[in-house]
Amino acid sequence: MDPENLQRAAKDHLWMHFTDHSRYDTEDVPVIVRGEGAYIYDTAGKRYLDGLGGLFVNQLGHGREDLAEAAAAQAKELAFHPLWSYATPPAIELAAKLAELAPGDLNRVFFTSGGGDSVESAWKLAKNYFKLVGKPLKHKVISRNVAYHGTPHGALSITGLPGLKQQFEPLVPSTFRVPNTNLYRASEITHGLHDGSDPEAFGRWAADQIEVAILNEGADTVAAVFLEPVQNAGGCFPPPPGYWQRVREICDRYDVLLVSDETICAYGRLGEMFGATRYGYVPDILTSAKGLTSGYAPMGAMIASDRLMAPFLEQGEMFAHGYTFGGHPVAAAVALKNLEIFETEGVLEHVRENAPAFRATLEKLLDLPMVGDVRGDGYFYGIELVKDRETKESLTADECERVLHGFLSKELYDAGLYCRADDRGDPVIQLSPPLTIGQPEFDEMERILRDVISRAHALL
Amino acid sequence: MDPENLQRAAKDHLWMHFTDHSRYDTEDVPVIVRGEGAYIYDTAGKRYLDGLGGLFVNQLGHGREDLAEAAAAQAKELAFHPLWSYATPPAIELAAKLAELAPGDLNRVFFTSGGGDSVESAWKLAKNYFKLVGKPLKHKVISRNVAYHGTPHGALSITGLPGLKQQFEPLVPSTFRVPNTNLYRASEITHGLHDGSDPEAFGRWAADQIEVAILNEGADTVAAVFLEPVQNAGGCFPPPPGYWQRVREICDRYDVLLVSDETICAYGRLGEMFGATRYGYVPDILTSAKGLTSGYAPMGAMIASDRLMAPFLEQGEMFAHGYTFGGHPVAAAVALKNLEIFETEGVLEHVRENAPAFRATLEKLLDLPMVGDVRGDGYFYGIELVKDRETKESLTADECERVLHGFLSKELYDAGLYCRADDRGDPVIQLSPPLTIGQPEFDEMERILRDVISRAHALL
Repeated sequence: MDPENLQRAAKDHLWMHFTDHSRYDTEDVPVIVRGEGAYIYDTAGKRYLDGLGGLFVNQLGHGREDLAEAAAAQAKELAFHPLWSYATPPAIELAAKLAELAPGDLNRVFFTSGGGDSVESAWKLAKNYFKLVGKPLKHKVISRNVAYHGTPHGALSITGLPGLKQQFEPLVPSTFRVPNTNLYRASEITHGLHDGSDPEAFGRWAADQIEVAILNEGADTVAAVFLEPVQNAGGCFPPPPGYWQRVREICDRYDVLLVSDETICAYGRLGEMFGATRYGYVPDILTSAKGLTSGYAPMGAMIASDRLMAPFLEQGEMFAHGYTFGGHPVAAAVALKNLEIFETEGVLEHVRENAPAFRATLEKLLDLPMVGDVRGDGYFYGIELVKDRETKESLTADECERVLHGFLSKELYDAGLYCRADDRGDPVIQLSPPLTIGQPEFDEMERILRDVISRAHALL
Repeated sequence: MDPENLQRAAKDHLWMHFTDHSRYDTEDVPVIVRGEGAYIYDTAGKRYLDGLGGLFVNQLGHGREDLAEAAAAQAKELAFHPLWSYATPPAIELAAKLAELAPGDLNRVFFTSGGGDSVESAWKLAKNYFKLVGKPLKHKVISRNVAYHGTPHGALSITGLPGLKQQFEPLVPSTFRVPNTNLYRASEITHGLHDGSDPEAFGRWAADQIEVAILNEGADTVAAVFLEPVQNAGGCFPPPPGYWQRVREICDRYDVLLVSDETICAYGRLGEMFGATRYGYVPDILTSAKGLTSGYAPMGAMIASDRLMAPFLEQGEMFAHGYTFGGHPVAAAVALKNLEIFETEGVLEHVRENAPAFRATLEKLLDLPMVGDVRGDGYFYGIELVKDRETKESLTADECERVLHGFLSKELYDAGLYCRADDRGDPVIQLSPPLTIGQPEFDEMERILRDVISRAHALL
């Protein structure tokens, strides 16, 4: 199809995701046609730095022939066979590889269709596990305010964004929210108890709210806590020092499973294979997707501890759960090649070496009056936009609509930077570029951000 | 990995789906390594007829270089970009193609990760749509007894198999079950009101139970009815004549959306592109996956009527739903090539021409005392096994365990036929082979089934 027919067909037939379609009454749908390294190209041949890695997925960059060939070779050999009582070499080898890479006794790999379905699977496993070990009342989940965990009904129930949920209620009972670790807003979150100047104390307080929630609900009814290593929605909330260790203690005390939702943070995003490794904890379940294949094939994986699988190895027991496409041979072959390249090209080392420069480059933006906070870890950053640096006053809903969505989002793209302006929490710009980039691309991002944010400020 | 290491790694690390792992204490995990046409091969090089098309997915057979090359070409060009406010040529072109193929005004395509997530999406759409058009109480779903609609929490809630649900409750309120169209058990289902000798009357009765359920719950609270064209779980229940037309009437009367869950039945399985076309109805939403790519890439699609998208085209409105991997460029390119081959190789015509011979060949098995019923349509059949042809007495749970799972399943596989022995309803053997096969493969299936079922009968 030529560009004109693509536009027509997109507007007539393609239901885009999380999209305000009314804007395309007057605008063209942006159509991306090609990728190469850290750059993507539209139908006019215009180039954009892929500052979001697609959608937090693209670790190795675009146009990799090695990943494409790995897919084709497996598709010719065996394109599909399910894991329903059967196995295939790529799925087995990938399971073994993930077990080797994952911390602690996270040795059991259940493949899914993506991140949301990894979360679905983790909750189902938690409920089923406790029924099998004689604690059938344990089914509730605790998660964090503003946290996004996916869109299927179960994952959405765990999500802490009321605006994404209310259209679809009633959802799955019973999930409960606790505070996130937004250090920049510590004072608001704690109602003045912590001002953020002592991150460890704030983190301790935030972790302890999980204990409060467990006790509020009754420990005998709580199955799991779902947390991201660095929370994405709201704009990158890294854990304060000691936070994860305290959460682990609390979960152990009340026999509540700790689920590390690493849909975004796994596979090098934070400079380690897993966020849990980055912050030194061992969850009971680790959920992942996205970067597992660098986005070259759809795939998710839930990785569980040996302890959680044990009751399902007994005669007559079964985890009655599955996905047709779970462990898809082609996707698994792509993931294996992806992880192999991590080793041969030293991707984790590259991220660890360059992350300080990425941070330092982005932190230059702190001289702009509209940049309230720059936060994140590894190759994963959020830039919070404010009206007033001193008071941290945020944009109003109307300003978000007019300036964040109406101006910033489009202007950044027009200036050649594909990233995400998001206001599911406070307004932020999200960055999650390919893990292969370095200083030249950091500078390019900073330059474009500086220019566009400066111009946005004039509109407030 | 060599076969021995594959066994060890599979047992130590791969959590298979819907699998009783205890059997692999003493048995090898069956590992499929290669496919060619309608056949798959294990690590020992042994050949099996793929009687299930993987898991109802493989329409065009294994080892197709054209599909593999389509994947590789797209992966090199653009492996990933999300549909979150953006589009890519393969996703746009596939959306337009599906809109062209789908009946009526099913013109809006929302891509998902698979069948279960297509069902999730359809329910979310139904709830959101009714909130936008001033009927916010409409959220409940009606589905059929023994019907399987997927495993994420929402899809599982709609599923009519209590045994798959109870480990995971509480699920999403509020879903309600109506009778399926098991003509063979019409007398049991209707408590003697219909004996199955008048299929149309039985179908009318079954459809009318949907009206009863809507009235029981209150039409103002019911959002949708989810039905498969031919119900899979239970072993292929085709619709009696007039059933779908009556259901359509009822849905229209009470403004309840009719969702045709075609995860299995679409893309040629019944000799038409969609089951709705096969049986002459137009649903409000059509959910699909599996055969869309012939399984060469994971993908699902929800296809909705223009009417349902209309309120989301208004300014400020948005269907706040999405999947990172929805509309994945590589999967979309594979789907486009798959649908192109349907045309160039006359796949639908082949199915329509050969389906009567497939049926006639399988019906030869009706001379076996253990074969109670042979039912289905197109290239999709269920063979119900009984203890007594005359009384239709079914196997006990113990006999299912011992004869169906303990003997038949393994013996069919050992004899060279990969298919599925299932007792989510009454015990059945399920067949859903590649759409490319003909009389030689029909005969091979019949020969193996005859031999193994005969030997199974001796064990009762």
